[in-house]
Amino acid sequence: MSLIPNFDAINQAAERIKPFAHRTPVLTSAWFNRETGGEIFFKCENFQKVGAFKFRGACNAIMKLPKREGEKGIVTHSSGNHAQAVALASKLAGYKATIVMPENAPKVKVNAVRGYGADIVFCESTIESREESAEKIILKTGATFIHPYNHPDVIAGQGTCALELLAEVPDLDVILAPVGGGGLMSGTLIAAKSINPNIKVFGVEPEFADDAWRSLNSGRIEQVLRTDSIADGLRTSLGSITFEIIQKHIDGIVTVSESSIIRDMRNIWERMKIIIEPSCSVPVSALIDGKLDVRGKKIGVILTGGNVDLDHLPW
Amino acid sequence: MSLIPNFDAINQAAERIKPFAHRTPVLTSAWFNRETGGEIFFKCENFQKVGAFKFRGACNAIMKLPKREGEKGIVTHSSGNHAQAVALASKLAGYKATIVMPENAPKVKVNAVRGYGADIVFCESTIESREESAEKIILKTGATFIHPYNHPDVIAGQGTCALELLAEVPDLDVILAPVGGGGLMSGTLIAAKSINPNIKVFGVEPEFADDAWRSLNSGRIEQVLRTDSIADGLRTSLGSITFEIIQKHIDGIVTVSESSIIRDMRNIWERMKIIIEPSCSVPVSALIDGKLDVRGKKIGVILTGGNVDLDHLPW
Repeated sequence: MSLIPNFDAINQAAERIKPFAHRTPVLTSAWFNRETGGEIFFKCENFQKVGAFKFRGACNAIMKLPKREGEKGIVTHSSGNHAQAVALASKLAGYKATIVMPENAPKVKVNAVRGYGADIVFCESTIESREESAEKIILKTGATFIHPYNHPDVIAGQGTCALELLAEVPDLDVILAPVGGGGLMSGTLIAAKSINPNIKVFGVEPEFADDAWRSLNSGRIEQVLRTDSIADGLRTSLGSITFEIIQKHIDGIVTVSESSIIRDMRNIWERMKIIIEPSCSVPVSALIDGKLDVRGKKIGVILTGGNVDLDHLPW
Repeated sequence: MSLIPNFDAINQAAERIKPFAHRTPVLTSAWFNRETGGEIFFKCENFQKVGAFKFRGACNAIMKLPKREGEKGIVTHSSGNHAQAVALASKLAGYKATIVMPENAPKVKVNAVRGYGADIVFCESTIESREESAEKIILKTGATFIHPYNHPDVIAGQGTCALELLAEVPDLDVILAPVGGGGLMSGTLIAAKSINPNIKVFGVEPEFADDAWRSLNSGRIEQVLRTDSIADGLRTSLGSITFEIIQKHIDGIVTVSESSIIRDMRNIWERMKIIIEPSCSVPVSALIDGKLDVRGKKIGVILTGGNVDLDHLPW
């Protein structure tokens, strides 16, 4: 059985998460249209439950579990939006979630996860320690591990975002989304190309986390080489499933500078009066910096999340 | 002729500004519903043109002018959202606007007004100096003065906000709005009580700018006694027209503390991922602090604007 979800899986995911997820609004901005010469439609996943698109994938994967499996518990390791997504989706399903988090995770994120009723197990801040801690729990309890992106049901859930966007603006020429682990991009590619094979889908990455761009060039999964991009949600390498989908379907990946990311995060706050996190403005910078020429075109941009520490803004 | 606009004037204003103003979205938040026990509908005027409801009133007043009057120019004095509103509405109408601003006005606001193509005349930071400067221009050019709130057409324009809110959520029990000069509150009262005489409309003020509350108690227009409320949009006393309307129709005014205003500004940023200015969270604080008991009720809250200096946040 292929691990690559098809368009049916995305449509089923949409039905499955409908009672739990928000159908987020699509906003426009005269200023961004003027600056880019295109017509931009912003799909606002910062208004999604837990403040990020991640809820779609986690919710689909958890709600799809047979009850007897879910009742043994849910496990993941994450210090980001996926942790909150798994915690809330588990709570809504009536399952017990355990989230493995690094000891140095920001207190605000630890509290958010705890607020959704999940147990937290702290580990050292290495990927090995995280995986080991998660495996221990799985061995002991039989809990199900929900990977943040390299998981068919998570990818199908993330695909529901493009499904909604294209239902609202059917004649988009281009869709842009950031690329971290590739879950959102994979779901977006399957949804968009199934609905309209002519639509162009581009990924955007920070220069400091350009692993997907390098992976496309080398033909194998490349690692993120530095950990200091302001776009903390994108410091992740692709997985086996997401790489396969992206390699097959994507129209290209471009990269943008750290200073552009911060500038356009602020531009969105000031011009659109909405709060987005740094990972979110990455595709917007590709437009503002002219990395993609979209003059005269209709462009969908997925704004991925709005979880920001208001005490530590990057300006 | 009465200077108090009637419901017809508000309906006409709605038609008049329709080609220029946004029909702003109404958002809800599970968190705020839980905290208050009511069902709150936030009318998001922070997404309005120029980032504030003020555009409605200025646009109505300026578009309503006979062409031969408008062509002599538009004048106002303001360092706040009304300045930007008059500048943009004049530009859209093809009229020349001159805005009198105090020399110490924040550069960001001066630039915003200039960005809309208006001329700026600087004056000393007293109300006398502002009025004198505006009068000089009027005498010289025959320009029309657009008062920020004590003006029938401005009041009618602000009333279109409640009109839209009640079109979207017809069965509201209560509407809340902040009270500064009283233009928004006056328009809201006329619109809401005309549509449904049983709807309750309450005003909310900062404790540091409780002039409208004192005016209701004393039966005459009281002045703002201090200038240090964080809610800079509300440091204004009522006008003769707005006082008459408010005195006649309002169901009550409550006040909230400065610390509550800042707390709930941040709560809205964090929970709803939208940017609002401090004046905006004033009615929200009345709900969170239990100054009004809204349990089991449907409440409309007008979020008035989102123009914030991101380099000087109050936390």
